[in-house]
Amino acid sequence: MFITLEGPEGAGKTTLIRGLAERLMAEGRAVVTTREPGAGPVGGLIREILLGDNEIHPRAELLLFLADRAQHVEDLIRPALDGGQVVLCDRHADSTVVYQGYGRGLDRDELRRMNAHATGGLVPDLTLLLDIDPELGLQRQERADRLGGEGLEFHQRVREGFLSEAKREPSRWVILNAQEPAPQVEERAWKVIAERLRAKA
Amino acid sequence: MFITLEGPEGAGKTTLIRGLAERLMAEGRAVVTTREPGAGPVGGLIREILLGDNEIHPRAELLLFLADRAQHVEDLIRPALDGGQVVLCDRHADSTVVYQGYGRGLDRDELRRMNAHATGGLVPDLTLLLDIDPELGLQRQERADRLGGEGLEFHQRVREGFLSEAKREPSRWVILNAQEPAPQVEERAWKVIAERLRAKA
Repeated sequence: MFITLEGPEGAGKTTLIRGLAERLMAEGRAVVTTREPGAGPVGGLIREILLGDNEIHPRAELLLFLADRAQHVEDLIRPALDGGQVVLCDRHADSTVVYQGYGRGLDRDELRRMNAHATGGLVPDLTLLLDIDPELGLQRQERADRLGGEGLEFHQRVREGFLSEAKREPSRWVILNAQEPAPQVEERAWKVIAERLRAKA
Repeated sequence: MFITLEGPEGAGKTTLIRGLAERLMAEGRAVVTTREPGAGPVGGLIREILLGDNEIHPRAELLLFLADRAQHVEDLIRPALDGGQVVLCDRHADSTVVYQGYGRGLDRDELRRMNAHATGGLVPDLTLLLDIDPELGLQRQERADRLGGEGLEFHQRVREGFLSEAKREPSRWVILNAQEPAPQVEERAWKVIAERLRAKA
């Protein structure tokens, strides 16, 4: 089962992934937690370029995210899924459609095609969207990287983008209110995952 | 005028670019010589990943080459062309179609589409192909990087690929016999460039 977590920085994705991984392991499931960009040695080098101080053109930025994703899927995600593990991934293809498409204005259908190329057609079984008011999310953020440094308007477009994407594939996406206390968000997420795992068994 | 040089390592692209740049400057032309991958600070970081010891999946490798190209076009090539300079580039989009397509077996039409995305539609005015027997090219090569380390069969597919691409767009490509002495190759290349520049003027 391939589960992705989406939403802005500061929404609590890292905390939620940790909590869900513990619950899955407590049930005897093999779990891999990972993130994009930056898993693995090649991903780590790409992440340094992306989050560094270089001025990167939007198309080059997109292609670097996709390169990281292609390597990540082949090196880690697909082998883990083939081995029967549950993969919990902090950001995946949807972040590209939302940040580069809704955020930076690149063509969304083109982004979907390029995502499909990068992932070799892999799509998450479940995507948890941590939805939060951008102003609140920005306050909670620990550090401002290149994307985090964008203005409030950008982050509002990103929020609307995530919600629109969730509406396009309602059976894959589950929207969680990340303004609720973390234990409550985790409880809600866990209910969904437990149900999906039962349905799969 | 945007001129690219294509062909395998060891065919003499670097020497030819230097010679052509000198001739262009002697005629009072402003010239930029550059290469892919690895121009500029972002390109340099991508080149390190590509030519390093990491095991890179073919799709990730492709996307890294394209990211380098997108950044290169926006940062350097387009501004230079807009400023009226002649750009001499050691490898460009055709290398991707040939090495990843003919060499590694990725879909060539898909590669062309992705190239068009990465370059924003920029196509060279002239492409000089330095054609050489792969065995001879490999002997001449100073160092074996990741691509150079491929076997002879790979390089034979690459040679056929370059020749096939040249046939698809005969008005853009000029095939030079790189087994001839370097001054003779330069003389032939210069004749073509001088003619094209006159036609453009």
